[in-house]
Amino acid sequence: MTRDLIPPLLEKLGGLRPDLHNKDFLLTWEQSQDDVLAVVTIAEALEYCYRANISTRVFDGGLAISNFRDKSTRTRFSFASAGSMLGLSVTDLDESKTQVAHGETVRETANMISFLTEVIGIRDDLFLGYGHQYMSEVSTAVDQGFAEGVLPQRPAVINLQCDLDHPTQTLCDLLHLKKTFGSLDDLRGKKIAMTWAYSPSYGKPMSVPQGIIGLMSRFGMDVVLAHPEDYDLVPEIVDVSRANAEQSGGSFTVAHSMAEAFEGADVVYPKSWAPVHVMQERTDLLKSGRGKEVEALEKKCIEANNAYRDWECTEELMARTAGGKALYMHCLPADITDVNCQYGEVAASVFERYWRETYHEAEHKLYVMAAMMLLTRFPDAHAVLTDLLSANKPRRIR
Amino acid sequence: MTRDLIPPLLEKLGGLRPDLHNKDFLLTWEQSQDDVLAVVTIAEALEYCYRANISTRVFDGGLAISNFRDKSTRTRFSFASAGSMLGLSVTDLDESKTQVAHGETVRETANMISFLTEVIGIRDDLFLGYGHQYMSEVSTAVDQGFAEGVLPQRPAVINLQCDLDHPTQTLCDLLHLKKTFGSLDDLRGKKIAMTWAYSPSYGKPMSVPQGIIGLMSRFGMDVVLAHPEDYDLVPEIVDVSRANAEQSGGSFTVAHSMAEAFEGADVVYPKSWAPVHVMQERTDLLKSGRGKEVEALEKKCIEANNAYRDWECTEELMARTAGGKALYMHCLPADITDVNCQYGEVAASVFERYWRETYHEAEHKLYVMAAMMLLTRFPDAHAVLTDLLSANKPRRIR
Amino acid sequence: MTRDLIPPLLEKLGGLRPDLHNKDFLLTWEQSQDDVLAVVTIAEALEYCYRANISTRVFDGGLAISNFRDKSTRTRFSFASAGSMLGLSVTDLDESKTQVAHGETVRETANMISFLTEVIGIRDDLFLGYGHQYMSEVSTAVDQGFAEGVLPQRPAVINLQCDLDHPTQTLCDLLHLKKTFGSLDDLRGKKIAMTWAYSPSYGKPMSVPQGIIGLMSRFGMDVVLAHPEDYDLVPEIVDVSRANAEQSGGSFTVAHSMAEAFEGADVVYPKSWAPVHVMQERTDLLKSGRGKEVEALEKKCIEANNAYRDWECTEELMARTAGGKALYMHCLPADITDVNCQYGEVAASVFERYWRETYHEAEHKLYVMAAMMLLTRFPDAHAVLTDLLSANKPRRIR
Repeated sequence: MTRDLIPPLLEKLGGLRPDLHNKDFLLTWEQSQDDVLAVVTIAEALEYCYRANISTRVFDGGLAISNFRDKSTRTRFSFASAGSMLGLSVTDLDESKTQVAHGETVRETANMISFLTEVIGIRDDLFLGYGHQYMSEVSTAVDQGFAEGVLPQRPAVINLQCDLDHPTQTLCDLLHLKKTFGSLDDLRGKKIAMTWAYSPSYGKPMSVPQGIIGLMSRFGMDVVLAHPEDYDLVPEIVDVSRANAEQSGGSFTVAHSMAEAFEGADVVYPKSWAPVHVMQERTDLLKSGRGKEVEALEKKCIEANNAYRDWECTEELMARTAGGKALYMHCLPADITDVNCQYGEVAASVFERYWRETYHEAEHKLYVMAAMMLLTRFPDAHAVLTDLLSANKPRRIR
Repeated sequence: MTRDLIPPLLEKLGGLRPDLHNKDFLLTWEQSQDDVLAVVTIAEALEYCYRANISTRVFDGGLAISNFRDKSTRTRFSFASAGSMLGLSVTDLDESKTQVAHGETVRETANMISFLTEVIGIRDDLFLGYGHQYMSEVSTAVDQGFAEGVLPQRPAVINLQCDLDHPTQTLCDLLHLKKTFGSLDDLRGKKIAMTWAYSPSYGKPMSVPQGIIGLMSRFGMDVVLAHPEDYDLVPEIVDVSRANAEQSGGSFTVAHSMAEAFEGADVVYPKSWAPVHVMQERTDLLKSGRGKEVEALEKKCIEANNAYRDWECTEELMARTAGGKALYMHCLPADITDVNCQYGEVAASVFERYWRETYHEAEHKLYVMAAMMLLTRFPDAHAVLTDLLSANKPRRIR
Repeated sequence: MTRDLIPPLLEKLGGLRPDLHNKDFLLTWEQSQDDVLAVVTIAEALEYCYRANISTRVFDGGLAISNFRDKSTRTRFSFASAGSMLGLSVTDLDESKTQVAHGETVRETANMISFLTEVIGIRDDLFLGYGHQYMSEVSTAVDQGFAEGVLPQRPAVINLQCDLDHPTQTLCDLLHLKKTFGSLDDLRGKKIAMTWAYSPSYGKPMSVPQGIIGLMSRFGMDVVLAHPEDYDLVPEIVDVSRANAEQSGGSFTVAHSMAEAFEGADVVYPKSWAPVHVMQERTDLLKSGRGKEVEALEKKCIEANNAYRDWECTEELMARTAGGKALYMHCLPADITDVNCQYGEVAASVFERYWRETYHEAEHKLYVMAAMMLLTRFPDAHAVLTDLLSANKPRRIR
């Protein structure tokens, strides 16, 4: 029975010392290994609670606020689902309908929306150097409000994708790997290829590749980052990943061909991104009021991309992976050749063979978010889950 | 007491064999008579539960998603109300804020929003040949996701108006008729006039008139469809209605004057629509990138309409109905002469005499939606309602 | 313990005879003193319930609808929070997505959205002579719907800011004063300066200053209204305030300098507004289709404002208040000199000294809204709160 899968996870959780209460979840590399493991463990437990029809309504009212400064489908619905399964009312802060434009300070807006708020989820991934900074400012603002007694509780800020990291995605990717390979320990020595791939579009954030190398390097994996010469990520995060790999007993290498990265890989994650120098130039133009030049930049970049159309995850490349059967991963939506574009990140036949897996991968995200909410909002998430299990209240009446 | 009205309905429900669990509600003519009767019976029971202050919260979390591809007031709020009374969090899929435009497939979007979703309500009524088709694609997509274990449950797709039918409207119309005439059996032999009426606007969908003739012909009514020569509905649905009437022991006739249709009618439903050939032409223009020609088409149609300004539900016409007292019906909002337009579908004095009835008619819609949710999401809706009655939990504390 | 603060408030509430059940809250001056006191008392009790982790979920489903015809951050989130803490699903009536534009009558829209609705919150502050009128029309419409049995309950209309008053703001201001000075009785004889202040923007509503003088004059305060010669408020409301002061044993005077108003004041409320004659002219232009002339009017007004840049709440002015320590109040967001504008309503150092207080002031708003909901939707709010206290259900599981 699904229900029986939960107690072993609680036991595992009992051995961890996460330290997230009254804090945020912004960047995985700022969180301890126990924090990361607790999120993944609770996410899996919540998944089984849902399938076993055990209500996980821990709040009887209160808000979960989302602030999407960029488009989103799956993250938006994951956040709404996570809030709903915990009993929170989900409200979107649509900045165009508010007085934020009136020069309201971050301190003020953050406090004004937080009087009954347990969690603030933010997506702010468009401007390099600004997304994470904005989340940190909101974090400081609610710290202040809580310290001064203005806020009756301190809402957690959860990063729904910034310029640096995309932790709700990469942790759901980690849970997906755990379920695919049996355990996190089984990831040790497995080769994962995080590689750039061609896309006809431009300006895709670096947060996923950065998040993947920053996180997977902590589990003893052989992480290979591959991209064309000019498509660097933020150097500090590459450094973090290299250090992580050393510490975890894995390895971290950079390759400049997809074939090299795929060779013998157990996992491949082919995904497009815009290089760090382009994201920097774009941000500089927009922040200095030269927005009109962005179009020219965009055109130049798309042309540059065109030189790398062969960076596509084809059947030929998949055949070079371990047993020809590497796990294909993607955060979705993927640019699929002949499906939604002429030349894309992945061949249609490869994607079609793996669509179930990528959808399962995506499914975990809502539970990762809910796990982050439990860990940040309760001093003892283990006790909360134990309560839920013993209450055994059905989520649906029958 | 209101509460006492519920057990007889449960008894009636117990005699039905609806087959909607894990399915959708898209077109009434694809559903069995027991499906239709179960929806109406449960809708009425839920209405009494609400008035008797019996909580009908059957879910403790989970999503109801609406996707409105056309404007809506009453359907939007009915859907929100239905979700709320069952304990679901209602979330709108605003396609402009999502990545749907990025060429995401229907399979992907449908699954990505459905991990914790019990019901997806869709309005897609603007393009002939596309609305029902889109809903069917979403249906296939969630079937697939559920079959592959990607979705922990299979959300129901509920048609909130497509190019062919508007079942939540017509079933609330049916419940309105039941309550007005005493029982569904009492509809036998009653004459209902579904007639075109003049409107200064253009492009109103055919879903309501089609839905009305397709549904009311199943209850032994004498259904008269009336419209100017050139204002045909989709021929297949007229055929379905004719066949229904034959089978139910009623009749189905087409008239080409309002006066003829109103003669001795027990019920009149005067409402404007755009003819099938116009809707077809409009769709062809828009889908072939000739959107600019739509304006000319629109102009031509409004001019064509002008020849039929006398198709107005006036006091004179009402006087020709059975006892001069036919029930006036409308799905609202109506074009009311001298109220919101110069020439409209109905005279102000007629509308004013019947506004209460049309509002009551509209009230049923939310309960019809909630009934569809119960029937599609639970294997035994009768048992669910029995549980609610015996739990007798108050909806409001006092 | 926070919990112990609640019974004395319930005792006080027991001595009041509010008469708000099945009614609205539109203008404070139309409500009895007991109505006003009941709102403030319940708001405070709900605040302690929240902090003491006592669930205040009095509804198990049902809607709270907001209709913002102007931008809002704090009021929007206060309303969402108030609905959530009482167990209502909050839904926004976004008129651009509805058929309201189709010439639907107020009676129809109001009823169509209200079948399961407990409360309709409306912000309509842009047009002098129209905001309060619109709310009254909605009120009449739901009265009618309820009387005719179309609506199973009569939703309360709550004014979230109109052209005349802003009761959820001023009542949270009153609660703030109560908490600051110890009790409402302690307000007697205290001097409050409601003064105009310079702002670089234009067209700020008069609802806050009007609401403040109309309400605070009922508690024996010495109310001073100060503004440049030409910046009058709606004369009828000034008259109401003068009469209130006379009856309550306070005083009401008009000054034409900030210094005079601040002299010895215990409370200062410096805030910009557009004068009544400008708001009238603006409304006339917009309602008569001369919208293009509004820009010229705006320009003229901003120039007129510039003559009064010295109407700024500076340290020098604050030094003239009682002990140099008057309570600084603002409904937020404030125009702060050198923070979000070059010249503003208040000096940065003054605002920085009082930001905690203004945030606390804002916090009360959501509880004021929830109190209005309880009083309008339950015949005996005292009994409801007593039930909640004795049930003592936790809002969060731990």
